[in-house]
Amino acid sequence: MARLYRGMRDFLPEEMIPREEITAKIKEVFRRWGYVPIETPAIELLETLLGKYGDEADKLIYEIKHKDGLGLRYDLTVPLARVIAMYGQNLPMPFRRYQIQPVWRAERSQKQKGRFREFIQCDVDIIGTSSPIADAEILAISAEILSNLGFERYKILLNHRQILRGLVNYAGFDEKNELFVLRSIDKWDKIGKEAVREELAEKSFKKESIDRIFELIEIDETNWNLLVELSKIDNQRVKNGVKNLRKILEYLSAVGVGQDVVQVTPRMARGLDYYTGAIFETVLSNLPSMGSLTGGGRYDDLIGMFSGKGKIPACGTTIGLDRIISALQELDKFPKAHTFTKVLVAQFSKALSNEALNFAHKLRSVGIPTEVFPEPKKLSKQFSYANKWNIPYVVLIGEDEVEEELCTLKDMSSGQQRVIHQDRAIKILLESINKK
Amino acid sequence: MARLYRGMRDFLPEEMIPREEITAKIKEVFRRWGYVPIETPAIELLETLLGKYGDEADKLIYEIKHKDGLGLRYDLTVPLARVIAMYGQNLPMPFRRYQIQPVWRAERSQKQKGRFREFIQCDVDIIGTSSPIADAEILAISAEILSNLGFERYKILLNHRQILRGLVNYAGFDEKNELFVLRSIDKWDKIGKEAVREELAEKSFKKESIDRIFELIEIDETNWNLLVELSKIDNQRVKNGVKNLRKILEYLSAVGVGQDVVQVTPRMARGLDYYTGAIFETVLSNLPSMGSLTGGGRYDDLIGMFSGKGKIPACGTTIGLDRIISALQELDKFPKAHTFTKVLVAQFSKALSNEALNFAHKLRSVGIPTEVFPEPKKLSKQFSYANKWNIPYVVLIGEDEVEEELCTLKDMSSGQQRVIHQDRAIKILLESINKK
Repeated sequence: MARLYRGMRDFLPEEMIPREEITAKIKEVFRRWGYVPIETPAIELLETLLGKYGDEADKLIYEIKHKDGLGLRYDLTVPLARVIAMYGQNLPMPFRRYQIQPVWRAERSQKQKGRFREFIQCDVDIIGTSSPIADAEILAISAEILSNLGFERYKILLNHRQILRGLVNYAGFDEKNELFVLRSIDKWDKIGKEAVREELAEKSFKKESIDRIFELIEIDETNWNLLVELSKIDNQRVKNGVKNLRKILEYLSAVGVGQDVVQVTPRMARGLDYYTGAIFETVLSNLPSMGSLTGGGRYDDLIGMFSGKGKIPACGTTIGLDRIISALQELDKFPKAHTFTKVLVAQFSKALSNEALNFAHKLRSVGIPTEVFPEPKKLSKQFSYANKWNIPYVVLIGEDEVEEELCTLKDMSSGQQRVIHQDRAIKILLESINKK
Repeated sequence: MARLYRGMRDFLPEEMIPREEITAKIKEVFRRWGYVPIETPAIELLETLLGKYGDEADKLIYEIKHKDGLGLRYDLTVPLARVIAMYGQNLPMPFRRYQIQPVWRAERSQKQKGRFREFIQCDVDIIGTSSPIADAEILAISAEILSNLGFERYKILLNHRQILRGLVNYAGFDEKNELFVLRSIDKWDKIGKEAVREELAEKSFKKESIDRIFELIEIDETNWNLLVELSKIDNQRVKNGVKNLRKILEYLSAVGVGQDVVQVTPRMARGLDYYTGAIFETVLSNLPSMGSLTGGGRYDDLIGMFSGKGKIPACGTTIGLDRIISALQELDKFPKAHTFTKVLVAQFSKALSNEALNFAHKLRSVGIPTEVFPEPKKLSKQFSYANKWNIPYVVLIGEDEVEEELCTLKDMSSGQQRVIHQDRAIKILLESINKK
């Protein structure tokens, strides 16, 4: 009778405790770079959500039955743009924000690895500056987070919407078809190069344009050589994009991100419509099947769409918590955890409940996470409970022990147990727990 | 053009930073008592949500346009019951969990103080034990959280569904009307005693029953005397409830919660249908208009409704984050915070961007939260940015300073500034920040 809507997930403690730890590490990096948190509601007006992501994404928005036209947020970028449009005049610029909240997507297909209908995004964005320092900063943060989480072999894939659109145009596509071609190219990693070619061919674009664009985005060169090649192309948007990427690469070095982890990748397109400048993803060299763990870019026009007050430049990335966790699991780096509890106070009998409760109270008062087994069940059951949760110590106050304020202290890993004064037990537990 | 659905809220950093701090404090208490986190999805099947809370609450569930019948969760208790029914056989019992997630309610009226359409609940529950130790534990946790957050004058209102239903029955109402009468009584604090009386009168209950129940739930006595009075009533459910409350009061003392903060309150009923035993709320003596900050109780039948495997006893409470924050604000105890950043590295000129970025990188590497102003705007603008965010220090590397690795360090609170070696600046900043 108890069922969950297909595609939704419950997180039990075994998974939630490491998830909380990972989120805390991500937050710590955001804060070290001066980012501050915001939160927005799950429910937005449909008018806010629709028409920002592209037609295919619009279809994935969960709609709520309501006369006002409501839906669940699809990402954290559009809500941010709405927030800036509404309150931006009171926020000191540049505004650096992080936001860690779930988003919802009505995916129709069976779930793919790392794709879910509800998932947490950790977003980090900087608003109000078009300096390439901002792009470099966002990339450096992505890299630092992956390092801190224990990933050793990651790559930052870097590209530029102006380069891509310039190339598409230069290859002979009409300006009005640029976004369509980009969205096709974006599917390369999912459906393969040939399927992309077919999708373009079906739209009756000229064969030579299709050949030409594939040629252009498949140049295989080191970053700087590639940028030299691209800068030779006679298209102003391509030239501007190349100049911008050069600056970003330079500033990345200045904040400690080596050129070896960055890979300028002309065929990396990103699916969403709102990007306008640099775009980027991070992938794992030793786990390419996982797809991108983070992804973002510059979106200088999105906020203007809401505010109607002209351009407000912005740049940011999303850290995909679920992808990160799947990757840590596959690489056998997912932290193990069961409970925060250090001591279980077992119950000897109902007559001694108050003694057990009071001893637990003392332990908590000195900061030791402690629980009481709430019923005086067979001691073997109480011990087996401690074992199941990996609780390291069990304390028991028996009948003979009450008078002299003694207790039995059992170390669950060694199995050793001894009868000692309660004060001494507190001291031993405190030391042992602070040591770890 | 940028709008928010009425009743929904955005949280900007000024509010979010203290919200994050408050949530961290609440979590810390949960963990000290051995509770572990779970999370459930926002979207549940309607069959899971409906028929658990009572008819009035059912109408407040947001429904999603979807052929499968989906809705947004209304609280965190019903999802917990579903989780236990689905995975309970693999969870060591008793199972102590906390859960901090938003819930949604389609409130129709204009927003009332502390009532919102989306809000965070912090739930803490213990499953698998009917021991009154569990009830006492949940109450002690509520009290400890309020203490830790700086509330000095709070009261725990304690009552019992068995006592209430026993009294209602004893007053002459039919058993099938018990829940209706309870839900009416629950409105006392919102609509007033006379309106409750009218609501009951309209249902054509006997006047003497109505008079009698008011008489019974208005006994004004100290806890122990009140329990003595109630135990004289010739009704088995009342007697059982009294016995249970006595145990809870005794165990509360054993875990350090004084009798002075507990107030047995026969007219406190709680609105939801699923409670079966002790019920409780906490209120502020110096801010009664705020309503309850936490509320919960024992619900021994709810999980069985899902699992179909008979009773699984359970008990828990909800900590209302929004009420807590409103209360802290009204009592002028809401923490002030603007940013985590300790140092702003200003930019002197584009030619010196790399120096600024590199110095910021060094500061972050030793753990100092640092940001760079991304454009070499007028220095007065960069300083005023630091002021707006309350950033305590600004560092500037000027043209003359680069060669000798010097920098200008400005203390924003004193206004003092000096030119010193960069390494020395790092040392001073590190010391000053660790001191605070």
